[in-house]
Amino acid sequence: MQTPWEYRYAHRTQRMGSSVIRELLKLTEQPDIISFGGGLPAPEVFPVKEFQEACNQVLTDHGAQALQYSTTEGYLPLREMIARHNARYSVRVTAEHIMITSGSQQALDFIGRVFVNRGDYIVVEEPTYLGALQAWNAYGAQYITVRTDEHGMVMDELESALRIGPKFIYILPNFQNPSGCTLSLERRMKLVELADKYGVPIVEDDPYGQLRYEGEHIPSVATLDSRYRNDNGGEYTGNVIYLSTFSKLLAPGLRLAWVIAPPQVIRRLVMTKQAADLHTSSFNQHVAYEVAKNGFLDEHVKVIRATYKQRRDAMLEIMEEMFPPNVRWTKPQGGMFLWGMLPENVDAAEVLKTAIERKVAFVPGAAFHANGGGANTMRINFSYSTPETIREGISRLGTTLKEALKNGKK
Amino acid sequence: MQTPWEYRYAHRTQRMGSSVIRELLKLTEQPDIISFGGGLPAPEVFPVKEFQEACNQVLTDHGAQALQYSTTEGYLPLREMIARHNARYSVRVTAEHIMITSGSQQALDFIGRVFVNRGDYIVVEEPTYLGALQAWNAYGAQYITVRTDEHGMVMDELESALRIGPKFIYILPNFQNPSGCTLSLERRMKLVELADKYGVPIVEDDPYGQLRYEGEHIPSVATLDSRYRNDNGGEYTGNVIYLSTFSKLLAPGLRLAWVIAPPQVIRRLVMTKQAADLHTSSFNQHVAYEVAKNGFLDEHVKVIRATYKQRRDAMLEIMEEMFPPNVRWTKPQGGMFLWGMLPENVDAAEVLKTAIERKVAFVPGAAFHANGGGANTMRINFSYSTPETIREGISRLGTTLKEALKNGKK
Repeated sequence: MQTPWEYRYAHRTQRMGSSVIRELLKLTEQPDIISFGGGLPAPEVFPVKEFQEACNQVLTDHGAQALQYSTTEGYLPLREMIARHNARYSVRVTAEHIMITSGSQQALDFIGRVFVNRGDYIVVEEPTYLGALQAWNAYGAQYITVRTDEHGMVMDELESALRIGPKFIYILPNFQNPSGCTLSLERRMKLVELADKYGVPIVEDDPYGQLRYEGEHIPSVATLDSRYRNDNGGEYTGNVIYLSTFSKLLAPGLRLAWVIAPPQVIRRLVMTKQAADLHTSSFNQHVAYEVAKNGFLDEHVKVIRATYKQRRDAMLEIMEEMFPPNVRWTKPQGGMFLWGMLPENVDAAEVLKTAIERKVAFVPGAAFHANGGGANTMRINFSYSTPETIREGISRLGTTLKEALKNGKK
Repeated sequence: MQTPWEYRYAHRTQRMGSSVIRELLKLTEQPDIISFGGGLPAPEVFPVKEFQEACNQVLTDHGAQALQYSTTEGYLPLREMIARHNARYSVRVTAEHIMITSGSQQALDFIGRVFVNRGDYIVVEEPTYLGALQAWNAYGAQYITVRTDEHGMVMDELESALRIGPKFIYILPNFQNPSGCTLSLERRMKLVELADKYGVPIVEDDPYGQLRYEGEHIPSVATLDSRYRNDNGGEYTGNVIYLSTFSKLLAPGLRLAWVIAPPQVIRRLVMTKQAADLHTSSFNQHVAYEVAKNGFLDEHVKVIRATYKQRRDAMLEIMEEMFPPNVRWTKPQGGMFLWGMLPENVDAAEVLKTAIERKVAFVPGAAFHANGGGANTMRINFSYSTPETIREGISRLGTTLKEALKNGKK
């Protein structure tokens, strides 16, 4: 007899759907589509030569160790390097505060697994990162959405959200995915204060913090939390779980990211990872360490910034020229995305269908809204395509939008 | 105020403990301990030169693709290669039947997530693989244990277990971890028949199937299931989810494994992986494909077999000489482990403490028993240490055991 598999699936998988973004990635595999849909780094900036040298070196010097099983926490020299970086960039931590994950998505999944009971509330920005919602939906999370404007999450609304008793606050302070907006210093300080007042932890997701193309670096939420507690530069014991990644600085194909948290939280995350996949590739950890250990990333990030700034500028310029006047969009100071807002009654998913016929793609914004809404919004990536391709793609999209807005959909 | 993190953790993490094996791996980092505890392949057989060439080739030819984000299912040429291998080794499948995972542990975790509701029963061998229990404990699984003997799971007891209505049967038919035993052909056929009769799927975990040192290959459970259904060599649509891995054939540090299942199950697993970590390292998938694409593994597995056979033989020989007469152990035809059975009232965990003082380690068997028991058993790995080290380590362990059995613990 045939096995009726669908009746064997667990309840938790019933909320599970395929990601809009992943499905779009498949579309972008058609070579003639100009895709602003994915969140892909520019392949032109991958340090291929440095990887080649690093692979050779690692296999020559540490082959047996790099190819063997390893500890769940991650490769100690890599964690120590991240600790040194973090002391400069954010707060003082040791390797005990750090676990290596297979991409930040895995860190989001593990945070869901460790913290979220079915029905627990999580405070998220509106819009927020779709991947986080996917990860936490699997654990039965519910969401309290807090409105954002061009300076990020609106703090007055956060306070009323905190009175509901959420498990934690999830925030992407720098060049947010999807909106491209940055949380202002003033609001970061208020966020830390409110989180402490209500005893609610903060998950700070910061994949793009170093990809700033103008303006001054704003201290991380963890840094401000540390100051608020008068840690005085001691090792971090605060209220923030901080995520970052090598995906945007080196290469996403390595699947290497890290989570920083008070050691007791790291220990719980390590137990979770033991049961989930034992550890992240020891080979990739060795290679990333080898590439980065002599300060290469400090130089390399300048190349990335220059490349992406040029692409962002090209996109903003051609949008100004080609987009209809009643379409608005954000002007991010960094990162990889900007956010388009169509007139209220225009459905971006419908626009996408026409856009794909014109061989250009973006992600409709509705999926980034945890509790519905946002049908008239769109996420547009500017890091992946060259300036020439951006001009061509945005021209096509501009034509599509003009048509859509004219055809009685406005 | 300090954050009381422990009150924020979810219910599911309360059954979570650190793995005995992982903790032991830490012990084995002391350079003077001879460890039979881990499940480590011999580093001497890692094909370091081939990896070096493959890394160079991949980065030269496909750098941009290998370092970029990729599809969740896995790298298509790699999946097609696995499909060709599987058609020879087991049943006929296409790339649609295959998803790449970050080690088999991740496949076990995803199977738990997709299938297991809190309180669901899973049929497991007694003893069974500890990592599977760890993965499924996180989803609230309960276990029905079925007794095993030297020919594997006892089929009469399986039938009564199936009448309880379990979600699936989990079985390691070849050179089982931990016992080293192999399920006989006759019992495999009975297993397939009983699973079909009660409509219960089978999860066949086969990391070691190609590591056979004597005797004839026995068809996989999936193969027998296919024959039972008169698939006549068509594409597989049966009742078995099959797991295997590159960890034992190439290198565990890559974290590369695969799951084979009917395409509808694969699609559900792919959605799970999207939310969990997006995809497995594209770089490692490219490198494994590059190493293996021209039939290298067929040759390489002969080297591994010769190496491990020698180590197994050395271990069995010295055990015969050094272990006390009232200790019994299995004689595996392949794989990486054998299983020691002490007199009923001797606690292997206590023996381990003395053993570590003598600088030798193994894993006490109790943790491999899903519902308790087995305190007098031990798992002993023979793949990692050289024959010389094995002789020294087993001598030390023999002395420890003689002492323990004499000291009134028998």
